[in-house]
Amino acid sequence: MDKFLHDHPSKPRTHDEKQKVINRLKRIEGQVRGIQKMVEDDRYCVDILVQISAIQSALKNVGFAVTERHINHCVSDAIRQGEGKETIEELMEVLKQFSK
Amino acid sequence: MDKFLHDHPSKPRTHDEKQKVINRLKRIEGQVRGIQKMVEDDRYCVDILVQISAIQSALKNVGFAVTERHINHCVSDAIRQGEGKETIEELMEVLKQFSK
Amino acid sequence: MDKFLHDHPSKPRTHDEKQKVINRLKRIEGQVRGIQKMVEDDRYCVDILVQISAIQSALKNVGFAVTERHINHCVSDAIRQGEGKETIEELMEVLKQFSK
Amino acid sequence: MDKFLHDHPSKPRTHDEKQKVINRLKRIEGQVRGIQKMVEDDRYCVDILVQISAIQSALKNVGFAVTERHINHCVSDAIRQGEGKETIEELMEVLKQFSK
Repeated sequence: MDKFLHDHPSKPRTHDEKQKVINRLKRIEGQVRGIQKMVEDDRYCVDILVQISAIQSALKNVGFAVTERHINHCVSDAIRQGEGKETIEELMEVLKQFSK
Repeated sequence: MDKFLHDHPSKPRTHDEKQKVINRLKRIEGQVRGIQKMVEDDRYCVDILVQISAIQSALKNVGFAVTERHINHCVSDAIRQGEGKETIEELMEVLKQFSK
Repeated sequence: MDKFLHDHPSKPRTHDEKQKVINRLKRIEGQVRGIQKMVEDDRYCVDILVQISAIQSALKNVGFAVTERHINHCVSDAIRQGEGKETIEELMEVLKQFSK
Repeated sequence: MDKFLHDHPSKPRTHDEKQKVINRLKRIEGQVRGIQKMVEDDRYCVDILVQISAIQSALKNVGFAVTERHINHCVSDAIRQGEGKETIEELMEVLKQFSK
């Protein structure tokens, strides 16, 4: 997807909203560093794969949180303003990409 | 999965093998930090979701690289030594987890 | 998910809409029968797996078509009537299930 | 994947093995027909999506059963005969396709 409909959400994220997502991403960042250490320590492949799966699931949950917020604000606002069609098409495109 | 069959791969990873995986993980780590910045800057949700999808795909590819190495060494060695059954069961369990 | 918010979409599907989805499902049904034949003929496992992947992708696309229709009608109508919250929660739950 | 390494598994499937997989596929075939009926009856979209998810998960499990059998026979035999490399590459390609 090259061009998005907007640069910012229709309703700015509050400080708490931001902090919640950023904290989850910081944990994921730490988990990625943890796997680097496992590879450095030549840990068993299956052990590493289990950690990668854990990060994938954490990332997916962050993605769903961002998606739910998007539908609750940007998509809903566009629908109320009679501009739902384009926003829903954009949403579907990213859902397809997100589910690969 | 609580207990693994081994602590280390049947054949240690070479320095180059390790570096290749670690470099990919470092790029992913940077991408995760990048998304933290996007959230901080209140960037549009769909833009953030596209970045999360990019990380998921990069992570998946690292997982496949680790899986291929695992089958080429640990699983193959166990099969040659007549101990394939347990190792294949372990492989299937992690493949199922990895594909969620 | 045990109980749904509705038994029917907020706007009934037209005959053409129904036929389009049913035709895609009939093709998938035929593909599933095709794999039964491949197993009966003891075809190579990888060949069978490629066919299963093709059905998964066709099914996923039917799911996205149903999802898009749902957002365009049921979710949008609920949002316009000020009842978006519950419908969006229901949507997110099924998106999570659908992406496993 | 256009050309496979073999037309048949290295060890033919027994009648029972075949029947087990075919029965699972017949159930999936019935589920696909069930969704056609739901669309015909204009059932609620989320209800239909939940059924599609159930089929995806049943199909995935059939795929894993075929994969496990493949690794236990075709891949293991190739490894024992010193021809593991190509068979493992083929396996990885189909695992990547299967996980999309």
